[in-house]
Order: sequence, then structure tokens, then C-alpha cells
Amino acid sequence: MKITKSTRIGWIGTGIMGRNMAMHILRDGYSLFVYNRTHSKAVELTSKGAVWCESPAEVAAMSDVIFTMVGYPSDVKETILGENGVLVAIRSNGILVDMTTSSPTLAKDIALIAGRRGISAIDAPVSGGDIGAQEATLSIMIGGDKKVVDALSPLWKLMGKTIVYQGEAGSGQYAKTVNQILIAGNMIGLCEALLFAYQSGLDLERVFQSVSTGAAGSWSLTNIAPRIMRGDFEPGFFVEHFVKDIEIALEESRRMNLSLPGLALVEQFYIAAKAKGYGKNGTQVLLRVLAELNNFDLGKKGKR
Amino acid sequence: MKITKSTRIGWIGTGIMGRNMAMHILRDGYSLFVYNRTHSKAVELTSKGAVWCESPAEVAAMSDVIFTMVGYPSDVKETILGENGVLVAIRSNGILVDMTTSSPTLAKDIALIAGRRGISAIDAPVSGGDIGAQEATLSIMIGGDKKVVDALSPLWKLMGKTIVYQGEAGSGQYAKTVNQILIAGNMIGLCEALLFAYQSGLDLERVFQSVSTGAAGSWSLTNIAPRIMRGDFEPGFFVEHFVKDIEIALEESRRMNLSLPGLALVEQFYIAAKAKGYGKNGTQVLLRVLAELNNFDLGKKGKR
Repeated sequence: MKITKSTRIGWIGTGIMGRNMAMHILRDGYSLFVYNRTHSKAVELTSKGAVWCESPAEVAAMSDVIFTMVGYPSDVKETILGENGVLVAIRSNGILVDMTTSSPTLAKDIALIAGRRGISAIDAPVSGGDIGAQEATLSIMIGGDKKVVDALSPLWKLMGKTIVYQGEAGSGQYAKTVNQILIAGNMIGLCEALLFAYQSGLDLERVFQSVSTGAAGSWSLTNIAPRIMRGDFEPGFFVEHFVKDIEIALEESRRMNLSLPGLALVEQFYIAAKAKGYGKNGTQVLLRVLAELNNFDLGKKGKR
Repeated sequence: MKITKSTRIGWIGTGIMGRNMAMHILRDGYSLFVYNRTHSKAVELTSKGAVWCESPAEVAAMSDVIFTMVGYPSDVKETILGENGVLVAIRSNGILVDMTTSSPTLAKDIALIAGRRGISAIDAPVSGGDIGAQEATLSIMIGGDKKVVDALSPLWKLMGKTIVYQGEAGSGQYAKTVNQILIAGNMIGLCEALLFAYQSGLDLERVFQSVSTGAAGSWSLTNIAPRIMRGDFEPGFFVEHFVKDIEIALEESRRMNLSLPGLALVEQFYIAAKAKGYGKNGTQVLLRVLAELNNFDLGKKGKR
């Protein structure tokens, strides 16, 4: 398939990420057919000319290329393989692109099932958050048939800046998993380090000055530590989404007989964060979990 | 005390870091008096005009400002408080600056003992490694009497780029500990993520392209991952030095009643690294430890 401006694009999942990504496609002049579980979240798109559909199957029936950007692997499964799912109505030679951060094994299964019917399924999770979605600077990690991935190039470029083909189906999800394992390590280091700094009575601004540009530096330190220092635990990136990503990573690892003790430990604290009602906070709330574990009042000065 | 070119500088500990740092002071025209346990490591300095002394005490007797840059807290203790240590011979109004990465509690003890005799003791550990020492781009984290720290300004500037006063005695060491806790988290995340990438059969170069500039980015990822991908486990930063730093962090945490589960776990794997004979490898050898834990052959392709 060659993508032209007459290629009809479907978009399922118009949450904060999906909406911003789909908007770039719509603005570039493509016909866009949209569905979302909660209708109201699609209004921004439909008010600008996107066509509302009543189900994933209806989107599929109207479109040549169908993007999905939903929540959990279970949502991906339902949206694509379910009763009113994409595969019920997609035309042969249709292309299905799941951009949800989801399970690599599920991505491979979907590619297999779709492939039997002549349909290409591509997995293409992203990193870069809502800002990256808005500014079209996402990193897109892509798995699936290389020819199809290349053909989609005009669409990738509307959404992302770092667009890398990672290999056969599932590889995009594997790469995104690598991304999340990196973040998990950075976050536990960051939160334990800041707690240590508080506890030892240091001035956090000064410590930040000393450590942020050297060998201890990280995106998390540069971007999230300042939020923590302001006492800001708003998302950013939701705890409950991160828990999902860690679960995916650990499930895949289990399946591959791979023991990742650091990640397993981080998961425990994020489960605790959810248990404490911090699921809708940003991932930096891990500091609060660790502070509470230590009966340490973040509002007070250290007690070295 | 005002630092002028007639201020006599003592330097104890001329290993890879100390030698390069002291060289900047010598080259700037100061008289330098040096001691090192292994004489040969001081020859580079003495051949350029530094005066060899037979003990820390002798260095102290000859100098106005005495720097120490040794190995372990036990070495700091012996060098400063021991039988032939600095405090035996230092003049009143002398200034003692320990730049070793050492125990905050020991730094406070030394400052107390020295202070009773009218001597200022400053703790000023650094980050930036041998390259930072050579190029005088170190981050220097400083604790102690602020007036004295300010007076030493001409000397700091010869060695470092990021020079930050952290607070009273011990604060420099606390800040450096924060730095090392950050690195510990980054390293476990990095090594587990890369192992996952290997195991899932990804092309590491492509993964690196996707993840290195976004939210998963870190100094470790940018600088150490490429070494790992080349199969290079040379130091960089020695495992056995990192184990020391983690021990200091955990001892201080224990003393403050602070539980840091992530750091404690990382310590276990670095102890295992030492047990496996990897003490003289770089900290990235953690990947090898985790690979061996999983009976995974890093030379082979993944087995997803």
C-alpha cells in the first residue's frame, strides 16, 4: 500500500496521547475515522472534521490504516480481537498499527492472527509523553513487516522525531519495555537518593547543582527531581500506567526465564503506591512511598 | 588564611585521581609537597618539581594547606588521625582538605577533632573520574567552614568546574553519597534493561537509538551502554571502589534509621561481582553478573 492523502485513516483511543497524535494526521489533510470508549474525549477531533464511529469494527470498515492507542493489553485484545474489534471488519490488505504500550507476546499473537488473513499488524509504542505527542517529537519503536513499516513513513513523521525500526512483530514492544526498565532503575535511584539527601539535612537545590550534570545525571534527575523539590507529585506519568508497564516487563521476563531482581523490587514499591491511593499521582510519588516506609516527614528538615 | 602563590600545598595520595588534580596545582606555580604509600606513583609529580616527603606527618609539617585523596575511609583515618598522620604535625591555622570519597560521619569526626586544635578540616569529594581530574572539570562537593571554603577558591578552580558549597562538615560527603545512590539505581536499570534487550533478540544499537535521548536517558546509558555493547568491561570506575561507596551510603543510612531497599539490593550484586573476581572491572560488569545469574551467554543471540 502506498500512503497518499486519499488513504483513509482510522484512530481508536483518543485519550491524552492518542488525541494529540491523531490531530497531527487530521491537520495534515487525511480523512480520519475515530472511536473511543468515552465519546467526549473524541470531540476535539470530531469538531475539527474527524468522523465518529460507533465501534472499533466500524472504524476498521471505513479505513485503510487503523491505529490503536488504548490503555492496557486487555484493551488492546478487546479492541483488535474482540467481538466488535478491528479484525471483524478490516479489509484484506488493511494495515493495523497498535501504538499502545502493550505486551510483546500479544503483539506477536496479533501479527500472527492478522497475517493469516493477509493483514499487516505493526506494533509501534512510543515514548515522550503528552508533550512529545503534542509537539510530534515522540520516539516511535516499531516492530513488524519492514516493507509495511517503510510504507507508513509519511504517517510516522507526522507524530514522531525518533523513528526506529526494531525488527519483526513484537520488537517495538520489546524496545519500549527496555525503555521502561531503564526508567524503573532511574526512578528508584532518584527517589532513594533524594530521600537520603533530605534525611541528611542537605539543601536539595545545591545537591542538584552538584550531581545533575555528571555521571549521576539522567532525564529523570533533570526533569523530575525539580518537581519533587517543589513537593509536586502530579503526573507526568501515572503510577498506574507505570505499574502496567512493569507488569508487562516482568511477565515477558518470566516467560523468557529471565530474572530481573531490581525491576521486581521496584514493582513492589509501585504496587504499594497504588495500595496507598497514589495510582493517579506521577511516578515520582515513589519518594513519598519510601518516605512513609521510613516514617520520614517530607515537610520537615532532615534528622542526621 | 589567604591563598597566594607562596602558600605551600601538601598532597597525600597520588593515585590516578590525586596525581592529576595535584598536577594542576603544581603547574599553576605552587610549591607542592607530596606523599603516597607507593612511591612510584608520585614520580610524575616529583619529576616536575614536587617535593617528596616520607609520611603524611612530614607533608603536614611542610605545608599550609594539606589535601588528601586516598582510597578507603580506613585510609583517610590512618592518613589524618594515625601515628604518622597529618594531625601529628599540622600547624595551628593549617587547613586540611580530604577529597577522598569517604564516610560523612568520619568527616564530621575529623572536623571536630581538628577544630579543637584550631585547624579547619574540609570534606570535598569529587565526581567526574580520571577524565574530569585531567581536564579540571570535576564536580567538587564541599562541606565545612564556609569562610575557609571560600578562601580556598583559587585552588578549587584549578581542579574543578562545578564547585558547590554543601554546608557544614560532612555535607560534601553526604552530597557525594547522593551522587553514588543515583548511579546505583541507574546502573541496575541499565544492566537489567540491556539484558532484557539481549534476551529478547533485539539489535542493541537500534534500541539505544530509540531510548537514549528520551525519558529513559542517563549519563550511564549514553556513556556506559556503548562500552557494554562492544563487550568492554574495563574500568571506567572500579567495582571495588563502587562497593566501598555503596557501603558508606548504607552505613550512613543505617545510622540515620533510613531503609533504602533498592540500594541494598544493588550492593548484593556488586558484592557478587567482587566474589566472582570482577573487582577490578568497571561497574558495567553488573551486566555480566546478571547474565550469569540467568545462565545467559552474552556472546550469543537472544532466545525469546
